[in-house]
Amino acid sequence: MELALLYSGGKDSSLAALILDAFYDVELVTAHFGLTADFEHGRQAADALGFPFDTVELDREVAEKAVGLMLDDGYPRNGIQRVHEHALESVAERDVVAIADGTRRDDRVPTVSRATAQSLEDRHEVDYLAPLSGFGRSAVDRLAERELVVETGPSGEIPRADYEGELRALIRAEHGTEVVNSVFPAHDQTIVRGRA
Amino acid sequence: MELALLYSGGKDSSLAALILDAFYDVELVTAHFGLTADFEHGRQAADALGFPFDTVELDREVAEKAVGLMLDDGYPRNGIQRVHEHALESVAERDVVAIADGTRRDDRVPTVSRATAQSLEDRHEVDYLAPLSGFGRSAVDRLAERELVVETGPSGEIPRADYEGELRALIRAEHGTEVVNSVFPAHDQTIVRGRA
Repeated sequence: MELALLYSGGKDSSLAALILDAFYDVELVTAHFGLTADFEHGRQAADALGFPFDTVELDREVAEKAVGLMLDDGYPRNGIQRVHEHALESVAERDVVAIADGTRRDDRVPTVSRATAQSLEDRHEVDYLAPLSGFGRSAVDRLAERELVVETGPSGEIPRADYEGELRALIRAEHGTEVVNSVFPAHDQTIVRGRA
Repeated sequence: MELALLYSGGKDSSLAALILDAFYDVELVTAHFGLTADFEHGRQAADALGFPFDTVELDREVAEKAVGLMLDDGYPRNGIQRVHEHALESVAERDVVAIADGTRRDDRVPTVSRATAQSLEDRHEVDYLAPLSGFGRSAVDRLAERELVVETGPSGEIPRADYEGELRALIRAEHGTEVVNSVFPAHDQTIVRGRA
């Protein structure tokens, strides 16, 4: 059974891949706007874990709208949510039985409600799986430590293949680095380098 | 890492066991009130899947209170929820890193909210995992068909090791079969006979 997993190269989506690997033919798919080459970090992480990899290109207009939301809000949550939902819709277009992402129980964003999940499934005739949605932060950290080689550091420094890098780049190009730093609070991110 | 999974012998908790098996030393634990020998169906299913098995005895008073709720309500939801939370508390007393259950995304009962999960984890210093909470009904059915040999039939006829059988027995002893049938709507249940 073919499954496409929305992949950032980080700890969470990598663990999701390991969980699903026992039951599906998992392909890791990095969604991007074609604004930077950050998706290559997704490919490297996928290679290091031994999973097939592909990319899907997203609608540039969604990036512009997400950035507009973030600038209006002064924080990234709603913009990230909008992009994630668009990415799930795009991945669901693929010829697969199931799609998945790495959202965790304790994530504040992105979140995928039961209603959103059901709607995705009904419209695209795929199963939507969130294998980490029943795992809290401590369980995820414990598993990542046992199963993965992970590099951790401040977002903006750690190479990643998620949307944040591209949205940062878009804001930087139009509004400068100071605005980037005011919209995105400092937080740590992870990139996976291999299996433990 | 030792993990105790609350086990009914049915499809959902069996699939939860298979998912966690790659990462934990999974022990299947059937919780019961000592009212019937139904827990033996849990042992048989665990044997058929090749997992270690144990039982934990629950507080009889909780069964009485759950039955009281069910009779007052005229439906089983709140009583089942009460028993499930008590069972999780009991399993969390074990000397394990993590506990788990088979609750699915689309389950109406039992449900374990994020707040309840966090509280369980904090008070007992264990991780609480719900590996199927990111899987909808269609995905669970698809996986069960590929991975398990499952027998399906009306509840009350299919042997099971969950609380429903004991609560039914308790209501039957005190109020007769008609009351049992009025409280529990007809629904299908499953018992696992082995791996596919």
